[in-house]
Amino acid sequence: MKIKYELTKKDGRARLGKLITNHGTFTTPMFMPVGTLANVKMLTPEELKEVGSAVVLSNTYHLWLRPGEDIVKKAGGLHKFMNYDGPILTDSGGFQVFSLAKNKEKDITEEGVHFKSHIDGKPLLLTPELSIEIQNKLDSDIAMSFDECIPYPATYEYAKNSTERTLRWAKRGKDAFKNENQSLFGIVQGGEFEDLRKYSAQETVKMDFDGYSIGGTSVGEDKDTMYKMVDYAIKYLPEDKPRYLMGVGEPSDLLEGVERGIDMFDCVLPTRLARHANAFTKHGKINLKNACYKEDFTPLDDCDCYTCKNYTKAYLRHLFVAKEGLGGRLLSIHNIRFLIKMMEDMRNAISEDKFLEYKKEFLDKYNNQP
Amino acid sequence: MKIKYELTKKDGRARLGKLITNHGTFTTPMFMPVGTLANVKMLTPEELKEVGSAVVLSNTYHLWLRPGEDIVKKAGGLHKFMNYDGPILTDSGGFQVFSLAKNKEKDITEEGVHFKSHIDGKPLLLTPELSIEIQNKLDSDIAMSFDECIPYPATYEYAKNSTERTLRWAKRGKDAFKNENQSLFGIVQGGEFEDLRKYSAQETVKMDFDGYSIGGTSVGEDKDTMYKMVDYAIKYLPEDKPRYLMGVGEPSDLLEGVERGIDMFDCVLPTRLARHANAFTKHGKINLKNACYKEDFTPLDDCDCYTCKNYTKAYLRHLFVAKEGLGGRLLSIHNIRFLIKMMEDMRNAISEDKFLEYKKEFLDKYNNQP
Repeated sequence: MKIKYELTKKDGRARLGKLITNHGTFTTPMFMPVGTLANVKMLTPEELKEVGSAVVLSNTYHLWLRPGEDIVKKAGGLHKFMNYDGPILTDSGGFQVFSLAKNKEKDITEEGVHFKSHIDGKPLLLTPELSIEIQNKLDSDIAMSFDECIPYPATYEYAKNSTERTLRWAKRGKDAFKNENQSLFGIVQGGEFEDLRKYSAQETVKMDFDGYSIGGTSVGEDKDTMYKMVDYAIKYLPEDKPRYLMGVGEPSDLLEGVERGIDMFDCVLPTRLARHANAFTKHGKINLKNACYKEDFTPLDDCDCYTCKNYTKAYLRHLFVAKEGLGGRLLSIHNIRFLIKMMEDMRNAISEDKFLEYKKEFLDKYNNQP
Repeated sequence: MKIKYELTKKDGRARLGKLITNHGTFTTPMFMPVGTLANVKMLTPEELKEVGSAVVLSNTYHLWLRPGEDIVKKAGGLHKFMNYDGPILTDSGGFQVFSLAKNKEKDITEEGVHFKSHIDGKPLLLTPELSIEIQNKLDSDIAMSFDECIPYPATYEYAKNSTERTLRWAKRGKDAFKNENQSLFGIVQGGEFEDLRKYSAQETVKMDFDGYSIGGTSVGEDKDTMYKMVDYAIKYLPEDKPRYLMGVGEPSDLLEGVERGIDMFDCVLPTRLARHANAFTKHGKINLKNACYKEDFTPLDDCDCYTCKNYTKAYLRHLFVAKEGLGGRLLSIHNIRFLIKMMEDMRNAISEDKFLEYKKEFLDKYNNQP
């Protein structure tokens, strides 16, 4: 069965909805933690469920290299392999090819992208068909089309050619797609150019995907550019399909995305920050290695997560100072819960037509450390 | 309240008993996982309870350096600091001083041991009184006397002088002891010499501690020597007090120890092995990085732990090959459960007067990989 999206309510452009998958239904807008190598670093599936995480993203490029999609297929697919029975979205590998290729060297041809493995430098070729074939074997709930993340800044000429090639790649991937139980999202490209975003959105929608993603650039453009790219594209996306903004996880970006009508987000930020002792709190980000937490026997935040209910900042600081892995684990739980709770609060706000009030209230607190 | 030990039953020299502490009662013989820096690496207290672990050991030397005993005291003691409400035993720091001192340089005087911090090389002095003062502040359930771990091999002369000094240190520590809610164990030394072990045991028992440990050497003597040292000492220990063999965790050593009448063991082995992809199984130790597990979609072992119930060897192998921390976490759960289950099985065997049969059966399987 393909996924099904139901739009429940709107508050301005912000959308409240429901995504029905073969591995459960979740409400949107939703944030997806990243399980790069078939696990969200340090955490079990049970812990993800406990923080309210209803869907995870896993990386096709990484799983292609290790353990290889054939092993995952033999295990019975990614869900069984990683012991996770909730919905999984896999990316196309495109972003990793552009960001992780050894020495950043790559050769983009009509066929696909030639580059070298970030692990052993082995020459590799990823094509739209191969990306889909790998994802079909991984058997995630949602697969993504293979696209080029346009460099930033790029000339109009480059962006136009790339956008057109990404459309041809999307068509090739769709034609190669063979998994009846999996859905496929198209990706809108076009760089920072309004007419290219419009063109890309319209042409991608014509191909009739199960959902649409608004792709970014390969480097991380500034925030205003990102919001602009969303604005340019989103008005051409159908209301009855989910919209996904890739690689976004800063609280302010989640708010801006939801405000513009985005339904799904993913980012390594909560777990990556956690491993470096950085915690989201209602009053902004803090670093637990800071000496001021040495004798701070209060919880990290006013939060309902396992970590905040059971541990103090002094203990968490001790774990990080002593380089104990439990610190990153406990903080990952909190940071993911923080973003998931934000999404819950946003959904509640939308349902009460108070999204903009919630946004202002959140940011007033978040940007003002006491 | 001090701990209370009740001897329930004997099978040969093997003892079935019960240890009552301020933080709960557990049956003996028992294995204690090591929570070096106020956490059993990667695991939560809830996970320890789930595998049947009823008591943990934490390291005085490490906590003295980080975060410092005063911070633990301000947190309300070690239990509150680490969010663990079960019994905790702290060692004296003696073993770490002898094994971890920077450049292995140390100066043993009557006062105590001068050495340099393994973290920053800072000169430090640990005395019997200071070890007790730190442990009193940590507020563990059971504290250990400060002893010298005699080098191996050592001359009779050296061992005799050291054994006598350890007795004087034990007395000084006992006199300095100030925590009414904490119990104190004496440590029998004497190296590999029968008469010194007898002398040390008799003199230590005269001081009337709440329990007795049979201390090893600073380097890890061969197994036969270790068993001999236990044999020499244990017959002079009172039946109504618990006996603890420090730093022992190999399955065969646990069996030999229990057979000789030991009640408690601790070792970093299960967690350290786990971080290096080594797993205990009923058919011996295996290394999960081995290529033969690449497509092995069966559980690690015939075992009731979370890891064995939910994950395959292929998945665990993938986590280790990809250097994902979850691998060490999942394997720590299994390895600890393996030793805890062994202790459960030994207790059952003792209660049925079948300890030697159990031992033979276990070792026949363990030493013969299929």
